Amino acid sequence: MIYPEPISRLIESLQKLPGVGPKTAQRFALFLLSLPRDQVVAIARSMVDARDKTRYCRICGNFSDDETCTVCRDKRRDNTVICVVQDSRDVLAMERTREYKGLYHVLGGAISPMDGIGPEQLRMRELLERIKKGRAREVILATNPNVEGEATALYVARVLKPLGLKVTRIAHGLPVGGDLEYADEVTLSRALEGRRDV
Amino acid sequence: MIYPEPISRLIESLQKLPGVGPKTAQRFALFLLSLPRDQVVAIARSMVDARDKTRYCRICGNFSDDETCTVCRDKRRDNTVICVVQDSRDVLAMERTREYKGLYHVLGGAISPMDGIGPEQLRMRELLERIKKGRAREVILATNPNVEGEATALYVARVLKPLGLKVTRIAHGLPVGGDLEYADEVTLSRALEGRRDV
Repeated sequence: MIYPEPISRLIESLQKLPGVGPKTAQRFALFLLSLPRDQVVAIARSMVDARDKTRYCRICGNFSDDETCTVCRDKRRDNTVICVVQDSRDVLAMERTREYKGLYHVLGGAISPMDGIGPEQLRMRELLERIKKGRAREVILATNPNVEGEATALYVARVLKPLGLKVTRIAHGLPVGGDLEYADEVTLSRALEGRRDV
Repeated sequence: MIYPEPISRLIESLQKLPGVGPKTAQRFALFLLSLPRDQVVAIARSMVDARDKTRYCRICGNFSDDETCTVCRDKRRDNTVICVVQDSRDVLAMERTREYKGLYHVLGGAISPMDGIGPEQLRMRELLERIKKGRAREVILATNPNVEGEATALYVARVLKPLGLKVTRIAHGLPVGGDLEYADEVTLSRALEGRRDV
Protein backbone atom coordinates (compact mmCIF):
# COMPACT_ATOMS: atom_id res chain seq x y z
CA MET A 1 0.00 0.00 0.00
CA ILE A 2 1.23 3.47 -0.82
CA TYR A 3 -0.39 6.88 -0.49
CA PRO A 4 -3.40 7.58 -2.69
CA GLU A 5 -2.39 9.51 -5.78
CA PRO A 6 -3.42 13.07 -4.73
CA ILE A 7 -1.37 12.74 -1.53
CA SER A 8 1.72 11.34 -3.20
CA ARG A 9 1.51 14.13 -5.77
CA LEU A 10 1.33 16.69 -2.95
CA ILE A 11 4.33 15.12 -1.20
CA GLU A 12 6.25 15.25 -4.44
CA SER A 13 5.45 18.89 -5.10
CA LEU A 14 6.29 19.96 -1.53
CA GLN A 15 9.75 18.47 -2.01
CA LYS A 16 10.50 21.32 -4.40
CA LEU A 17 10.77 23.66 -1.39
CA PRO A 18 14.38 24.32 -0.34
CA GLY A 19 15.68 21.91 2.30
CA VAL A 20 12.55 19.76 2.22
CA GLY A 21 13.10 16.02 1.67
CA PRO A 22 10.59 13.17 1.44
CA LYS A 23 10.07 12.89 5.23
CA THR A 24 9.41 16.59 5.79
CA ALA A 25 7.22 16.77 2.70
CA GLN A 26 5.20 13.85 4.02
CA ARG A 27 4.85 15.58 7.38
CA PHE A 28 3.69 18.80 5.69
CA ALA A 29 1.26 16.91 3.47
CA LEU A 30 -0.38 15.00 6.31
CA PHE A 31 -0.59 18.20 8.31
CA LEU A 32 -2.32 19.96 5.42
CA LEU A 33 -4.79 17.09 5.18
CA SER A 34 -5.64 17.53 8.84
CA LEU A 35 -6.48 21.23 8.41
CA PRO A 36 -9.98 22.53 7.63
CA ARG A 37 -10.42 23.01 3.88
CA ASP A 38 -10.60 26.83 3.99
CA GLN A 39 -7.22 27.04 5.70
CA VAL A 40 -5.60 24.87 3.03
CA VAL A 41 -7.18 27.06 0.36
CA ALA A 42 -5.88 30.16 2.17
CA ILE A 43 -2.30 28.86 2.17
CA ALA A 44 -2.53 27.82 -1.48
CA ARG A 45 -4.01 31.16 -2.44
CA SER A 46 -1.37 33.15 -0.55
CA MET A 47 1.28 31.40 -2.67
CA VAL A 48 -0.25 32.30 -5.99
CA ASP A 49 -1.19 35.77 -4.73
CA ALA A 50 2.36 36.54 -3.65
CA ARG A 51 3.63 35.35 -7.01
CA ASP A 52 1.08 37.44 -8.93
CA LYS A 53 0.99 40.61 -6.88
CA THR A 54 4.66 41.07 -6.06
CA ARG A 55 6.28 43.66 -8.26
CA TYR A 56 9.89 44.66 -8.53
CA CYS A 57 11.09 48.23 -8.26
CA ARG A 58 11.85 49.64 -11.73
CA ILE A 59 14.87 51.47 -10.33
CA CYS A 60 16.61 49.18 -7.83
CA GLY A 61 15.04 45.76 -8.48
CA ASN A 62 13.88 45.34 -4.89
CA PHE A 63 10.47 43.86 -3.99
CA SER A 64 7.85 46.51 -4.28
CA ASP A 65 4.14 47.08 -3.96
CA ASP A 66 4.26 49.77 -6.65
CA GLU A 67 6.33 50.73 -9.70
CA THR A 68 9.11 51.98 -7.43
CA CYS A 69 9.89 50.66 -3.95
CA THR A 70 9.52 52.49 -0.64
CA VAL A 71 13.27 53.12 -0.43
CA CYS A 72 13.56 54.64 -3.90
CA ARG A 73 10.43 56.75 -3.31
CA ASP A 74 11.71 58.08 0.03
CA LYS A 75 13.03 61.62 -0.57
CA ARG A 76 14.96 61.59 2.72
CA ARG A 77 17.29 58.81 1.56
CA ASP A 78 20.79 59.83 0.50
CA ASN A 79 20.86 59.38 -3.27
CA THR A 80 24.63 59.79 -3.51
CA VAL A 81 25.25 56.30 -2.10
CA ILE A 82 24.14 53.01 -3.68
CA CYS A 83 24.53 49.73 -1.83
CA VAL A 84 24.79 46.78 -4.23
CA VAL A 85 23.32 43.54 -2.85
CA GLN A 86 22.49 40.13 -4.29
CA ASP A 87 18.91 39.77 -3.11
CA SER A 88 15.89 41.61 -1.78
CA ARG A 89 16.49 39.68 1.42
CA ASP A 90 19.80 41.48 1.78
CA VAL A 91 18.04 44.83 1.51
CA LEU A 92 15.93 43.81 4.49
CA ALA A 93 19.05 42.76 6.43
CA MET A 94 20.71 46.12 5.69
CA GLU A 95 17.57 48.00 6.68
CA ARG A 96 17.47 46.18 10.00
CA THR A 97 20.78 47.87 10.93
CA ARG A 98 18.98 51.26 10.84
CA GLU A 99 22.40 52.70 9.98
CA TYR A 100 22.26 52.90 6.24
CA LYS A 101 20.45 55.85 4.71
CA GLY A 102 21.40 55.48 1.05
CA LEU A 103 19.77 53.65 -1.84
CA TYR A 104 20.07 50.02 -2.99
CA HIS A 105 20.64 48.07 -6.13
CA VAL A 106 19.56 44.44 -6.20
CA LEU A 107 21.66 42.39 -8.64
CA GLY A 108 19.39 39.36 -8.45
CA GLY A 109 22.16 36.86 -7.72
CA ALA A 110 25.91 36.46 -7.87
CA ILE A 111 28.29 35.44 -10.63
CA SER A 112 28.52 31.67 -10.57
CA PRO A 113 29.87 29.96 -13.70
CA MET A 114 28.97 26.56 -12.17
CA ASP A 115 25.28 27.55 -12.24
CA GLY A 116 25.60 29.29 -15.58
CA ILE A 117 25.17 32.76 -14.06
CA GLY A 118 27.37 35.39 -15.64
CA PRO A 119 27.24 39.21 -15.43
CA GLU A 120 24.58 39.26 -18.19
CA GLN A 121 22.14 37.44 -15.91
CA LEU A 122 22.53 40.11 -13.21
CA ARG A 123 21.08 43.61 -13.22
CA MET A 124 24.43 45.17 -14.21
CA ARG A 125 23.19 47.21 -17.16
CA GLU A 126 20.53 48.83 -14.96
CA LEU A 127 23.22 49.66 -12.38
CA LEU A 128 25.47 51.31 -14.96
CA GLU A 129 22.61 53.36 -16.38
CA ARG A 130 21.56 54.46 -12.91
CA ILE A 131 25.07 55.59 -12.11
CA LYS A 132 25.52 57.41 -15.42
CA LYS A 133 22.21 59.26 -15.04
CA GLY A 134 22.07 59.63 -11.24
CA ARG A 135 23.96 61.46 -8.56
CA ALA A 136 25.74 58.50 -6.97
CA ARG A 137 29.23 59.21 -5.70
CA GLU A 138 29.83 56.04 -3.72
CA VAL A 139 28.93 52.43 -4.41
CA ILE A 140 29.09 50.00 -1.47
CA LEU A 141 29.52 46.38 -2.49
CA ALA A 142 27.54 44.27 -0.02
CA THR A 143 27.45 40.93 -1.82
CA ASN A 144 27.84 37.81 0.33
CA PRO A 145 31.28 37.03 1.82
CA ASN A 146 31.65 33.76 -0.11
CA VAL A 147 33.34 32.78 -3.39
CA GLU A 148 30.47 33.86 -5.66
CA GLY A 149 29.84 37.07 -3.72
CA GLU A 150 33.52 38.01 -3.77
CA ALA A 151 33.80 37.32 -7.50
CA THR A 152 30.73 39.47 -8.10
CA ALA A 153 32.10 42.29 -5.95
CA LEU A 154 35.40 42.21 -7.83
CA TYR A 155 33.62 42.25 -11.16
CA VAL A 156 31.32 45.15 -10.23
CA ALA A 157 34.27 47.10 -8.81
CA ARG A 158 36.22 46.64 -12.02
CA VAL A 159 33.32 47.87 -14.13
CA LEU A 160 32.56 50.88 -11.92
CA LYS A 161 36.08 52.12 -11.11
CA PRO A 162 36.62 53.76 -14.56
CA LEU A 163 33.50 55.91 -13.94
CA GLY A 164 35.40 57.82 -11.23
CA LEU A 165 33.22 56.69 -8.32
CA LYS A 166 34.29 55.70 -4.86
CA VAL A 167 33.77 51.93 -4.70
CA THR A 168 33.88 50.26 -1.26
CA ARG A 169 33.38 46.75 0.09
CA ILE A 170 31.78 45.98 3.46
CA ALA A 171 34.30 44.82 6.07
CA HIS A 172 35.16 41.22 6.79
CA GLY A 173 36.01 40.34 10.37
CA LEU A 174 34.83 38.68 13.52
CA PRO A 175 31.08 38.73 14.06
CA VAL A 176 30.07 40.72 17.14
CA GLY A 177 29.45 38.40 20.09
CA GLY A 178 31.61 35.73 18.43
CA ASP A 179 34.49 33.89 19.96
CA LEU A 180 38.06 34.39 18.74
CA GLU A 181 38.88 30.80 19.60
CA TYR A 182 36.23 29.46 17.24
CA ALA A 183 36.79 31.86 14.35
CA ASP A 184 38.01 30.20 11.15
CA GLU A 185 41.48 31.21 10.01
CA VAL A 186 40.30 33.04 6.88
CA THR A 187 37.93 35.27 8.86
CA LEU A 188 40.60 35.88 11.48
CA SER A 189 43.25 36.86 8.94
CA ARG A 190 40.71 39.19 7.28
CA ALA A 191 39.96 40.71 10.68
CA LEU A 192 43.69 41.29 11.23
CA GLU A 193 44.12 42.76 7.77
CA GLY A 194 41.25 45.18 8.38
CA ARG A 195 42.42 46.31 11.83
CA ARG A 196 41.89 49.94 12.71
CA ASP A 197 43.35 52.49 15.13
CA VAL A 198 41.49 52.77 18.42
CA MET B 1 11.07 48.71 5.07
CA ILE B 2 9.28 45.42 5.45
CA TYR B 3 8.07 42.91 2.86
CA PRO B 4 5.23 44.00 0.59
CA GLU B 5 1.90 42.76 1.91
CA PRO B 6 1.38 39.69 -0.35
CA ILE B 7 4.81 38.37 0.63
CA SER B 8 4.39 38.94 4.35
CA ARG B 9 1.00 37.23 4.16
CA LEU B 10 2.61 34.26 2.41
CA ILE B 11 5.35 34.08 5.05
CA GLU B 12 2.73 34.15 7.76
CA SER B 13 0.65 31.40 6.21
CA LEU B 14 3.68 29.15 5.58
CA GLN B 15 4.47 29.35 9.29
CA LYS B 16 1.41 27.21 9.91
CA LEU B 17 3.34 24.20 8.58
CA PRO B 18 4.75 22.00 11.37
CA GLY B 19 8.29 22.93 12.41
CA VAL B 20 8.39 26.01 10.17
CA GLY B 21 9.38 29.27 11.88
CA PRO B 22 9.71 32.80 10.47
CA LYS B 23 13.14 32.18 8.91
CA THR B 24 12.19 28.98 7.10
CA ALA B 25 8.87 30.47 6.02
CA GLN B 26 10.75 33.45 4.58
CA ARG B 27 13.11 31.10 2.74
CA PHE B 28 10.17 29.12 1.32
CA ALA B 29 8.35 32.32 0.33
CA LEU B 30 11.32 33.83 -1.50
CA PHE B 31 11.94 30.50 -3.20
CA LEU B 32 8.33 30.37 -4.38
CA LEU B 33 8.66 33.89 -5.75
CA SER B 34 11.67 32.81 -7.78
CA LEU B 35 9.78 29.93 -9.44
CA PRO B 36 7.91 30.26 -12.75
CA ARG B 37 4.24 31.05 -12.13
CA ASP B 38 2.91 27.70 -13.40
CA GLN B 39 5.07 25.78 -10.91
CA VAL B 40 3.73 27.85 -8.02
CA VAL B 41 0.20 27.23 -9.24
CA ALA B 42 0.96 23.49 -9.49
CA ILE B 43 2.13 23.34 -5.86
CA ALA B 44 -0.86 25.37 -4.65
CA ARG B 45 -3.25 23.21 -6.64
CA SER B 46 -1.74 19.95 -5.36
CA MET B 47 -2.50 21.12 -1.81
CA VAL B 48 -6.16 21.81 -2.45
CA ASP B 49 -6.46 18.72 -4.64
CA ALA B 50 -5.08 16.44 -1.95
CA ARG B 51 -7.47 17.98 0.55
CA ASP B 52 -10.46 17.59 -1.77
CA LYS B 53 -9.76 14.23 -3.34
CA THR B 54 -8.50 12.26 -0.37
CA ARG B 55 -11.15 10.00 1.07
CA TYR B 56 -11.08 7.89 4.18
CA CYS B 57 -11.92 4.20 4.25
CA ARG B 58 -15.43 3.67 5.59
CA ILE B 59 -14.25 0.59 7.47
CA CYS B 60 -10.82 1.29 8.93
CA GLY B 61 -10.43 5.08 8.59
CA ASN B 62 -7.23 4.82 6.55
CA PHE B 63 -6.54 7.09 3.54
CA SER B 64 -8.30 5.74 0.54
CA ASP B 65 -8.95 6.45 -3.10
CA ASP B 66 -12.35 4.80 -2.89
CA GLU B 67 -15.07 4.08 -0.34
CA THR B 68 -12.94 1.34 1.18
CA CYS B 69 -9.14 1.24 1.20
CA THR B 70 -6.88 -1.21 -0.64
CA VAL B 71 -6.19 -3.15 2.57
CA CYS B 72 -9.86 -3.62 3.50
CA ARG B 73 -10.71 -4.56 -0.12
CA ASP B 74 -7.93 -7.16 -0.33
CA LYS B 75 -9.52 -10.60 0.10
CA ARG B 76 -6.14 -12.19 0.87
CA ARG B 77 -5.73 -10.21 4.11
CA ASP B 78 -6.39 -12.05 7.36
CA ASN B 79 -9.63 -10.60 8.71
CA THR B 80 -9.26 -12.26 12.11
CA VAL B 81 -6.57 -9.77 13.18
CA ILE B 82 -6.99 -5.99 13.51
CA CYS B 83 -4.03 -3.74 14.19
CA VAL B 84 -5.07 -0.52 15.94
CA VAL B 85 -2.89 2.51 15.05
CA GLN B 86 -3.09 6.25 15.65
CA ASP B 87 -2.58 7.50 12.10
CA SER B 88 -2.66 6.54 8.46
CA ARG B 89 1.09 7.14 8.55
CA ASP B 90 1.40 4.25 10.99
CA VAL B 91 -0.43 1.98 8.55
CA LEU B 92 2.26 2.79 6.00
CA ALA B 93 4.99 2.05 8.54
CA MET B 94 3.41 -1.31 9.37
CA GLU B 95 2.98 -2.16 5.69
CA ARG B 96 6.66 -1.46 5.09
CA THR B 97 7.53 -4.41 7.37
CA ARG B 98 5.83 -6.74 4.84
CA GLU B 99 5.18 -9.02 7.84
CA TYR B 100 1.67 -8.05 8.82
CA LYS B 101 -1.15 -9.60 6.83
CA GLY B 102 -4.17 -8.56 8.92
CA LEU B 103 -6.42 -5.51 8.81
CA TYR B 104 -6.05 -2.09 10.41
CA HIS B 105 -8.08 0.36 12.40
CA VAL B 106 -7.00 4.01 12.40
CA LEU B 107 -8.04 5.78 15.61
CA GLY B 108 -7.20 9.24 14.27
CA GLY B 109 -5.06 10.25 17.24
CA ALA B 110 -4.33 9.32 20.83
CA ILE B 111 -5.99 10.17 24.12
CA SER B 112 -4.49 13.45 25.32
CA PRO B 113 -6.44 15.39 27.95
CA MET B 114 -3.97 18.28 27.54
CA ASP B 115 -5.11 18.73 23.95
CA GLY B 116 -8.74 18.02 24.80
CA ILE B 117 -8.71 14.66 23.01
CA GLY B 118 -10.71 12.00 24.81
CA PRO B 119 -11.94 8.59 23.62
CA GLU B 120 -14.99 10.27 22.01
CA GLN B 121 -12.70 12.11 19.55
CA LEU B 122 -11.18 8.82 18.40
CA ARG B 123 -12.76 6.21 16.14
CA MET B 124 -13.59 3.91 19.08
CA ARG B 125 -17.26 3.38 18.30
CA GLU B 126 -16.38 2.26 14.77
CA LEU B 127 -13.84 -0.19 16.22
CA LEU B 128 -16.35 -1.70 18.62
CA GLU B 129 -18.97 -2.09 15.90
CA ARG B 130 -16.41 -3.70 13.60
CA ILE B 131 -15.44 -6.19 16.25
CA LYS B 132 -19.03 -7.02 17.18
CA LYS B 133 -20.01 -7.58 13.56
CA GLY B 134 -16.75 -8.94 12.14
CA ARG B 135 -14.61 -12.01 12.56
CA ALA B 136 -11.72 -10.48 14.51
CA ARG B 137 -10.14 -12.74 17.13
CA GLU B 138 -7.04 -10.69 17.92
CA VAL B 139 -6.51 -6.94 18.26
CA ILE B 140 -2.92 -5.70 18.18
CA LEU B 141 -2.42 -2.34 19.85
CA ALA B 142 0.23 -0.46 17.86
CA THR B 143 -0.18 3.06 19.21
CA ASN B 144 3.00 5.10 19.76
CA PRO B 145 5.31 4.13 22.64
CA ASN B 146 4.83 7.46 24.44
CA VAL B 147 2.56 8.68 27.24
CA GLU B 148 -0.47 9.38 25.02
CA GLY B 149 -0.01 6.20 23.01
CA GLU B 150 0.31 4.05 26.13
CA ALA B 151 -2.77 5.65 27.70
CA THR B 152 -4.71 4.99 24.50
CA ALA B 153 -3.53 1.38 24.35
CA LEU B 154 -4.58 0.82 27.98
CA TYR B 155 -7.96 2.37 27.32
CA VAL B 156 -8.63 0.34 24.17
CA ALA B 157 -7.49 -2.84 25.94
CA ARG B 158 -9.87 -2.22 28.82
CA VAL B 159 -12.79 -1.65 26.47
CA LEU B 160 -12.04 -4.71 24.31
CA LYS B 161 -11.09 -7.31 26.93
CA PRO B 162 -14.73 -7.95 28.05
CA LEU B 163 -15.56 -8.93 24.45
CA GLY B 164 -13.45 -12.08 24.83
CA LEU B 165 -10.81 -11.15 22.25
CA LYS B 166 -7.08 -11.65 22.42
CA VAL B 167 -5.65 -8.15 22.91
CA THR B 168 -1.90 -7.68 22.42
CA ARG B 169 0.53 -4.76 22.51
CA ILE B 170 3.56 -4.49 20.22
CA ALA B 171 6.85 -5.10 22.03
CA HIS B 172 9.03 -2.41 23.54
CA GLY B 173 12.76 -2.96 23.47
CA LEU B 174 16.01 -1.98 21.86
CA PRO B 175 15.75 -0.83 18.26
CA VAL B 176 17.58 -3.14 15.86
CA GLY B 177 20.99 -1.71 14.97
CA GLY B 178 20.89 0.36 18.17
CA ASP B 179 23.55 0.53 20.83
CA LEU B 180 22.97 -0.82 24.34
CA GLU B 181 25.26 1.84 25.75
CA TYR B 182 23.10 4.65 24.44
CA ALA B 183 19.70 3.14 25.22
CA ASP B 184 17.67 5.11 27.76
CA GLU B 185 16.91 3.30 31.01
CA VAL B 186 13.17 3.01 30.40
CA THR B 187 13.67 1.31 27.04
CA LEU B 188 16.34 -0.94 28.50
CA SER B 189 14.18 -2.03 31.45
CA ARG B 190 11.31 -2.71 29.02
CA ALA B 191 13.71 -4.77 26.91
CA LEU B 192 14.71 -6.78 29.99
CA GLU B 193 11.11 -7.22 31.02
CA GLY B 194 10.20 -8.52 27.58
CA ARG B 195 13.13 -10.94 27.30
CA ARG B 196 12.46 -14.25 25.60
CA ASP B 197 13.97 -17.74 25.53
CA VAL B 198 16.51 -18.28 22.76
